[in-house]
Amino acid sequence: MTAQFNTFIPPVRTLMGPGPSDVDPRILNALSRPTLGHLDPAFIGLMDEVKTLLQFAFQTDNQLTMPVSAPGSAGMESVFVNLLEPGDKVIVCQNGVFGGRMQQNVQRCGATAVMVQDTWGQQTDLQKVEEALKANPDAKAVAFVHAETSTGVRNDAKAISELAKRYDCLSIVDAVTSLGGIELDVDGWQIDAIYSGTQKCLSCVPGLSPVSFSHAAVEVIKARKTPVQSWFLDMDLVMGYWGQGGKRAYHHTAPVNSLYALHESLRILHNEGLQPAWQRHDEMHQTLKSGLENIGLEFVVDEAYRLPQLNMVSIPDGVNDAEVRGQLLSEFGLEIGAGLGELAGKVWRIGLMGYGSNMKNVDYCVSALTSVLKR
Amino acid sequence: MTAQFNTFIPPVRTLMGPGPSDVDPRILNALSRPTLGHLDPAFIGLMDEVKTLLQFAFQTDNQLTMPVSAPGSAGMESVFVNLLEPGDKVIVCQNGVFGGRMQQNVQRCGATAVMVQDTWGQQTDLQKVEEALKANPDAKAVAFVHAETSTGVRNDAKAISELAKRYDCLSIVDAVTSLGGIELDVDGWQIDAIYSGTQKCLSCVPGLSPVSFSHAAVEVIKARKTPVQSWFLDMDLVMGYWGQGGKRAYHHTAPVNSLYALHESLRILHNEGLQPAWQRHDEMHQTLKSGLENIGLEFVVDEAYRLPQLNMVSIPDGVNDAEVRGQLLSEFGLEIGAGLGELAGKVWRIGLMGYGSNMKNVDYCVSALTSVLKR
Repeated sequence: MTAQFNTFIPPVRTLMGPGPSDVDPRILNALSRPTLGHLDPAFIGLMDEVKTLLQFAFQTDNQLTMPVSAPGSAGMESVFVNLLEPGDKVIVCQNGVFGGRMQQNVQRCGATAVMVQDTWGQQTDLQKVEEALKANPDAKAVAFVHAETSTGVRNDAKAISELAKRYDCLSIVDAVTSLGGIELDVDGWQIDAIYSGTQKCLSCVPGLSPVSFSHAAVEVIKARKTPVQSWFLDMDLVMGYWGQGGKRAYHHTAPVNSLYALHESLRILHNEGLQPAWQRHDEMHQTLKSGLENIGLEFVVDEAYRLPQLNMVSIPDGVNDAEVRGQLLSEFGLEIGAGLGELAGKVWRIGLMGYGSNMKNVDYCVSALTSVLKR
Repeated sequence: MTAQFNTFIPPVRTLMGPGPSDVDPRILNALSRPTLGHLDPAFIGLMDEVKTLLQFAFQTDNQLTMPVSAPGSAGMESVFVNLLEPGDKVIVCQNGVFGGRMQQNVQRCGATAVMVQDTWGQQTDLQKVEEALKANPDAKAVAFVHAETSTGVRNDAKAISELAKRYDCLSIVDAVTSLGGIELDVDGWQIDAIYSGTQKCLSCVPGLSPVSFSHAAVEVIKARKTPVQSWFLDMDLVMGYWGQGGKRAYHHTAPVNSLYALHESLRILHNEGLQPAWQRHDEMHQTLKSGLENIGLEFVVDEAYRLPQLNMVSIPDGVNDAEVRGQLLSEFGLEIGAGLGELAGKVWRIGLMGYGSNMKNVDYCVSALTSVLKR
């Protein structure tokens, strides 16, 4: 091989798509500190703090709270493979791409997914969920997405979890885009299993997936009759390393530097406080909304359940989707998101997540879009 | 929560355990560059180079070559869940911890593992492998560990793979600790599926697992009758993102910054060249060997199949394992590895991997051990 390879210097970007979002420079700095051994006492001290800080962010006392050493999709899979056994039945609510991914996960566990479908861009209908629960008294869990990244819809996590509990089901929640951006109260809302991602409102690098399991969920795992189909994601083994019961058994080599970064990102959230962080996301969203409506862009999702951190607007008639996004990227270094699945070509998704949810990004986005759409 | 959390500053360490190994500062620098979107054209260019550089490191033309977005254990799992279906039979060679992990993976796929056991610290016996192949004409694959991290033994990857092919089986190789440290020739040795890790001889941060599948392995995946049990590790979906057939479909959010780091680490290996890198590992091993034997430490593994990058020595009689490792860590900032499994308390494992395989580390280790063992 005679080719030459240069070190990779990324172009300057402002990330306002559906994630990864702009990473706080303090987090990039933490990321690059020298690697420690994954059983070093100093590193184990860090792991303990990460666990405590995740309990804070999720608002939970769950002992089984830690980051899975892989992206959000693996966090999703860790929840399903640990809680489900072949033959189980799960009610899955879908009003966007990620409900469909849950269905795939359920099926690959040899379980049945009973789908509750709602129009993309609208909320999951509580009445439909209750009907599904009545029609399926043998369901083990209700699974849904808190913040649908593909549409910008907030589902009513509190109400759906309450419904699930009333019908003696576990509640399983996708909080990939909600954690740190909008209200989330794992213990208060009686959520049994939840997973998130680091690259959205935590403003950390992509690659880890915080998860948490309630006492009831842990009991279900303990009572399993079949082994968890994934060795890598088997919570019983993973927790042997994360210190359940005081143990520190080697399972896999933790992504040490990514955990430095997650620690720093949770520390920043802790210093700001949850309510102030949620309020900042809301305020930045309001400012962006005024700016976009001023230049004639219309929001798709009803205001009552619109996510502040993921703003979905219709692409105006006659405007070329790919051309506009291409100009924003090449001329302004600005990334916004395309539509996913059935919304491809019809909408843009503008993220205001974590560190990136600030006035400078809001102004820059409105100004760049104004300039490009005028042509 | 009133606790205060400080930013984490890792203590100064020299990592000479079984991995993670000392990370090259150039790689830590690359790691901390600003995050790009996972579908940004500039990032896709980087992915293409990572793929090319991995083909170089593995010495393969395999199109299905890429890093799994999770640690080596997930790379191992990706190989088994994609190649196996319930009812399949695999011959698994075990002469250390990691052969046992392969067995667990095979079983969790609903397949049968026929074990070929050898003493820990000795090589896998080719005759036993051939007997197992003769006794199990329905076996689909032979799986083994190239460099057993738990013992420092090199198994004869070329000979075992040839045997597997002669009996019409796929060969599955764990190269977590071998890639970049000793000779490895995926195409020349007819290896069908292989996985590695980034935190050993590539001197990169932990968290990614390079994998490669031969044409024959891809045909087996294509002919599957059942879906891959893992959505996250389903190669058909993963390759939709990594550009098989020119596609770039969103699957999961890639760990962007870790891929910057892997790119830099492979670039460094490419600049050095494979043979020079292997030779450096061997030379550093010889120097360490002299130093350790001078202070009375004995190697466990026969010289003919000893790994240069993982040096296993017996703990002398009357020496307290934990005390010595504790003193090395607290007084010298030096991490060496404990024994794993049945070798716990009996051996130390001293890594000389990648960037860490240098004279300074060799000298420091011998000098620190000399000082501590004299007490």
